[in-house]
Amino acid sequence: MTQTITRPQQIPATADIPEDDHATVDTAELGELLLGRWAHIRRTARELAGRPEVQKIEGLTHTDHRLRCFDQLHYLVEQQAVHRAFPAALGGNDDHGGNIAGFEELVVADPSLQIKAGVQWGLFGSAVMHLGTRQHHEAWLPGIMDLRIPGCFAMTETGHGSDVASIATTATFDPSTDEFVIDTPFRAAWKDYIGNGAIDGRAAVVFAQLVTNGVSHGVHGFYVELRNEDGSFRPGVGGEDDGIKGGLNGIDNGRLHFTGVRIPRTNLLNRYGDVAEDGTYTSPIASPGRRFFTMLGTLVQGRVSLDGAAVAASKLALTAAITYSTQRRQFNASSNLTEEVLMDYQRHQRRLLPRLAATYAASFAHEELLEKFDGVFSGEHDTDGDRQDLETLAAAFKPQSTWLALDTLQECREATGGQGFLAENRFTSLRADLDVYVTFEGDNNVLLQLVAKRLLTDYAKEFKGVDFGVLARYAVSQAAGRTLHRSGLRRVAQTLADTGSGKKSAIALRDEQTQHDLLTDRVQSRVADLAATLRGAKGMSQEQSAALFNEHQNELIEVAHAHAELLQWEAFTRGVHRITDPGTRQVLTRLRDLFGLCLIEKDLAWFLMNGRLSAQRARTLDAYINRLLVKIRPHALDLVQAFGYGQEHLRSAIASGAEQERQQEAAEYTRRRRASGDAPIDEKTLLARDAREKKAKQARKARKARKASPSPVG
Amino acid sequence: MTQTITRPQQIPATADIPEDDHATVDTAELGELLLGRWAHIRRTARELAGRPEVQKIEGLTHTDHRLRCFDQLHYLVEQQAVHRAFPAALGGNDDHGGNIAGFEELVVADPSLQIKAGVQWGLFGSAVMHLGTRQHHEAWLPGIMDLRIPGCFAMTETGHGSDVASIATTATFDPSTDEFVIDTPFRAAWKDYIGNGAIDGRAAVVFAQLVTNGVSHGVHGFYVELRNEDGSFRPGVGGEDDGIKGGLNGIDNGRLHFTGVRIPRTNLLNRYGDVAEDGTYTSPIASPGRRFFTMLGTLVQGRVSLDGAAVAASKLALTAAITYSTQRRQFNASSNLTEEVLMDYQRHQRRLLPRLAATYAASFAHEELLEKFDGVFSGEHDTDGDRQDLETLAAAFKPQSTWLALDTLQECREATGGQGFLAENRFTSLRADLDVYVTFEGDNNVLLQLVAKRLLTDYAKEFKGVDFGVLARYAVSQAAGRTLHRSGLRRVAQTLADTGSGKKSAIALRDEQTQHDLLTDRVQSRVADLAATLRGAKGMSQEQSAALFNEHQNELIEVAHAHAELLQWEAFTRGVHRITDPGTRQVLTRLRDLFGLCLIEKDLAWFLMNGRLSAQRARTLDAYINRLLVKIRPHALDLVQAFGYGQEHLRSAIASGAEQERQQEAAEYTRRRRASGDAPIDEKTLLARDAREKKAKQARKARKARKASPSPVG
Repeated sequence: MTQTITRPQQIPATADIPEDDHATVDTAELGELLLGRWAHIRRTARELAGRPEVQKIEGLTHTDHRLRCFDQLHYLVEQQAVHRAFPAALGGNDDHGGNIAGFEELVVADPSLQIKAGVQWGLFGSAVMHLGTRQHHEAWLPGIMDLRIPGCFAMTETGHGSDVASIATTATFDPSTDEFVIDTPFRAAWKDYIGNGAIDGRAAVVFAQLVTNGVSHGVHGFYVELRNEDGSFRPGVGGEDDGIKGGLNGIDNGRLHFTGVRIPRTNLLNRYGDVAEDGTYTSPIASPGRRFFTMLGTLVQGRVSLDGAAVAASKLALTAAITYSTQRRQFNASSNLTEEVLMDYQRHQRRLLPRLAATYAASFAHEELLEKFDGVFSGEHDTDGDRQDLETLAAAFKPQSTWLALDTLQECREATGGQGFLAENRFTSLRADLDVYVTFEGDNNVLLQLVAKRLLTDYAKEFKGVDFGVLARYAVSQAAGRTLHRSGLRRVAQTLADTGSGKKSAIALRDEQTQHDLLTDRVQSRVADLAATLRGAKGMSQEQSAALFNEHQNELIEVAHAHAELLQWEAFTRGVHRITDPGTRQVLTRLRDLFGLCLIEKDLAWFLMNGRLSAQRARTLDAYINRLLVKIRPHALDLVQAFGYGQEHLRSAIASGAEQERQQEAAEYTRRRRASGDAPIDEKTLLARDAREKKAKQARKARKARKASPSPVG
Repeated sequence: MTQTITRPQQIPATADIPEDDHATVDTAELGELLLGRWAHIRRTARELAGRPEVQKIEGLTHTDHRLRCFDQLHYLVEQQAVHRAFPAALGGNDDHGGNIAGFEELVVADPSLQIKAGVQWGLFGSAVMHLGTRQHHEAWLPGIMDLRIPGCFAMTETGHGSDVASIATTATFDPSTDEFVIDTPFRAAWKDYIGNGAIDGRAAVVFAQLVTNGVSHGVHGFYVELRNEDGSFRPGVGGEDDGIKGGLNGIDNGRLHFTGVRIPRTNLLNRYGDVAEDGTYTSPIASPGRRFFTMLGTLVQGRVSLDGAAVAASKLALTAAITYSTQRRQFNASSNLTEEVLMDYQRHQRRLLPRLAATYAASFAHEELLEKFDGVFSGEHDTDGDRQDLETLAAAFKPQSTWLALDTLQECREATGGQGFLAENRFTSLRADLDVYVTFEGDNNVLLQLVAKRLLTDYAKEFKGVDFGVLARYAVSQAAGRTLHRSGLRRVAQTLADTGSGKKSAIALRDEQTQHDLLTDRVQSRVADLAATLRGAKGMSQEQSAALFNEHQNELIEVAHAHAELLQWEAFTRGVHRITDPGTRQVLTRLRDLFGLCLIEKDLAWFLMNGRLSAQRARTLDAYINRLLVKIRPHALDLVQAFGYGQEHLRSAIASGAEQERQQEAAEYTRRRRASGDAPIDEKTLLARDAREKKAKQARKARKARKASPSPVG
């Protein structure tokens, strides 16, 4: 349970452990650590994901893939794989963290199946559960759980993706019939990209602006029946198919629109806002803004689960690519007899090992996020602050891990050449399916701006009444131990590093504390700089203020990145400290160093420009990373085996051992031919021999000539 | 004609032109410049690519897509679209540059069709043409040209991708029957990823080690019939389907193997090596190494054409994404009434405009490469040096442009959110198809190592007999005008910049000469450093020497990148200097500046660590790039329109103007409601009003109370 986040420096630094170049990795211990708190559920879910029944078949038309996925949802129901988060009273387990852990592992079977399950139970069902009240739960949850009511989560509109507050669909209360009337005012307000929207959805939670008594109370969720038993649209409902997508073609995404669609007043999911028979609106949350964010809060589980699924996909890809790279040989620079194993090439190590390190970081970070999520959703740690922290952590990690997955899948695909491009090795298929993970459930660039906003808000709170300009210019000392906030969110304003000391450049970069200081300092200084730059916005007009923020939008996103990276580094470090086996701990420490140093390398110019690293120290970084790669390389296979995925999950021809067989067969053939003596001679060898013989002949001729002619000197 | 490469600094610097913020782009002049020397052929090819007959239909099964592509090849023959490079005597045009220009444009129709045409005429046909002699041309070229003989280029083996010299298939001469016997010795030697290999190929040029009289003369091409009329394999030939791939599923890639397959001796494509009836081997090229590289030289046209096709795909993607981004609105930070246009967000500009600049650079660079290619293949400039330069240029540009295309397609897809993920907007489809461009026809990482090797060789030649260590330590002055070699390849050793002067940091980064100096210096210094590091390899054993090179493999690839970027920057600059319209020239100069400064920003740490830029100057870079973005933004639409692609090429729903219509309809609806006065009041407005009224009431009450009670002061 890593709920309590400790300062890495309070634990004996792993760098103190004497280096042992014969260290081995205890893959069992490491594997268990990676499985985390919900190990038992992950194991069950992986067993399920290993069955052909739930696995993707490549090359199906989108029509056939959709049919297959829909059937598979029924299979998931039968296997009791998808009800963990629902109330025990209705046959669930009230287990929120476990539910996400199990859900994440489905990605290795088929991301379409995962997301379609996510639409049905994680979005549609979850909206009824979290936004509705008892009557709604009783009326609809049983049917949603057992799939008698396949449904949609109809929020996004063609004209409003990330800006949910601005959606234009309206639900106007008509007291004369005690009904809401759902309307789509124009084409841009069509619901779009709605999973189950094109075909399967019988009902939907439709998000619309609630209007009653001439007042618009903002976005609320309404339970709306979409289709008749025969699949035709009900009166007033229309739509179209989103058609083929870049991936996830097992899901029937579609567009929906509503014209005077009447639903009973009681179909309003009324936990956070209700309308009485006379049209009076009431809400337990007075502020419309806070109410909106509370209702949207349930969306966080989508982000949390995408974070975990992306990590799983990266693990899968690296397992396949690294396994192959330890078997496949290409070019023979160092010997005429044997070729090099791919994994021994420096460039190959540079391509795969930093991504392996980043995947470990993302894995440890995700496990902490999942525990935070479980704390909030179980009600154990459910203050406003907890919810805000959860939102911010999810907004920080989901972009990191989803982009990492695309990057890793692509690098694995390229690093395995033509093999990587074949569907049978799955890199391209997983990449195509995961592509949309970076823009749905919160566009990554938008999420990072939320993180940046939170950093600035925290900073402002910390220094309320203090002159920002002064803070940005002068260093502020901080009390030790306060650096890391218990919530896992950094209080960025607590420290402004002593930038003038130059001390850091004198300490070796492999030192844990140095890495931590550099990464922390970067976030704190950049937040302080931004705060100073943006403080002028207060006195400005809305337009001017927006323009000022826009002039620094890129920096805002960069600082959010830096913050997320720091949090990942810390989670990785806490993970390393939990390892008991010395060899494993040493290898993992090196992997963490690789992660930290690659982060610093990526942003090296910042550290140099701002005097955090001397040019001299910075110039040692590249060589040091190369040395780390060489040290980690012997453990590469162990490090991916610790992920715990078997052949039934990999389903990748190049990771099956076939390459090893091919190499052995070829080597054996060459050995036999060489032994038999009937191998042809290479023309080059022949030419070299001829040249030698010619030279010898000339030498003999010359000697003969010298003998024949009398010596001038006698 | 940019054959003659001039020094940018000899032409009046465009930075001297007074800035005019109302500059406009003459899209006609710019468009013509971009179309280049083979404008007429590009226009014809684009007209063809705009026809539905040759266009990709999304969502076909790979079986149906293959059938469609094969039919489309016949259509290309009918339309006389694919014979430009063949001899005039056989109905071609002997036009090598024009052939590639026309071929490149096919990518906008369907990359599968392009590559399948490339297999048939660019690889299979080309091998017969360039490696064969008159008898082969007469026997097979007519059938290849009109598609009576669909064929394969069977070079790559499962166990040997980039390392062609090591392929294991053998062709052993049997003088008793005057035949070659083709054999696949083991599984790793199966031909793999062979286009037309799974189904359509009737014949193939099979590359195999030629063995005669007990001597292996290295890799040669042999014309081998694969299949009977009914599509079944001929005796001794076998194979299997590579199945579904990450893209290009219109092509039937497959594996092939040979067991004692006998072909007439005269089926050896004997231009560079022949075997007489008695088994005697002869070749016009004595050195087996040089012979091998000469035979492989024909492969360069694949790289040249992929470079151009990748540029075309980037142009297409940017046209769609930028068009949409000037119409779509999202979030309303600056006003309660209207939302911001995506393209006005700084982050959005940062995502799209540097890629637009890089695409212009790649486009100008490609045009120069194509002219070089035409010079060599037409025989006009066909020395050994020319061929080597062509090889190196192609090896430098193909990685840049193919990676740029994937990156650009992906960023366009993400920047357009959910829309970008729909197949109807084509980003995902093009990206999937172009994915393999980065690893086939020469893996990008392998090609870059060839470039690095060439840089080191040139450097060594230049300083033959000179102590490298001394050179690396001290600056060497150079004669002006010698910086740019006429071939377009930089003589890296000619200049070692004066690194101590610090002068550069004092000159504004927008200065053309400064950018050029910085980018040149980076290549020269890094090559010199590497040469100094690697010179020790000479006295080492093969194993030690290979290990030393491997320890610097990553640097080798980085320096090749840097070199390619410099060449692109120079090509872009030469392009800018050819523009006559002042407004266009000014806008393009800014775009070139953006390209140059983003290159410097990407590698800023190097410039800082090595004292090429002061920290002070480096800190201004980010803000300067942001200012450039703002200045280029008003011209973004013109800059993509100059690419000259119409709706028939874009075929992207979001670039059709539909978004503009949706925005107008929504704005009109809002305006009407506001005017009618029956729009609901926002709860927030109401709350604010209530709060004001409550305050006023309290104030009135207070006044009343004050009036009622006697004033203490009277």
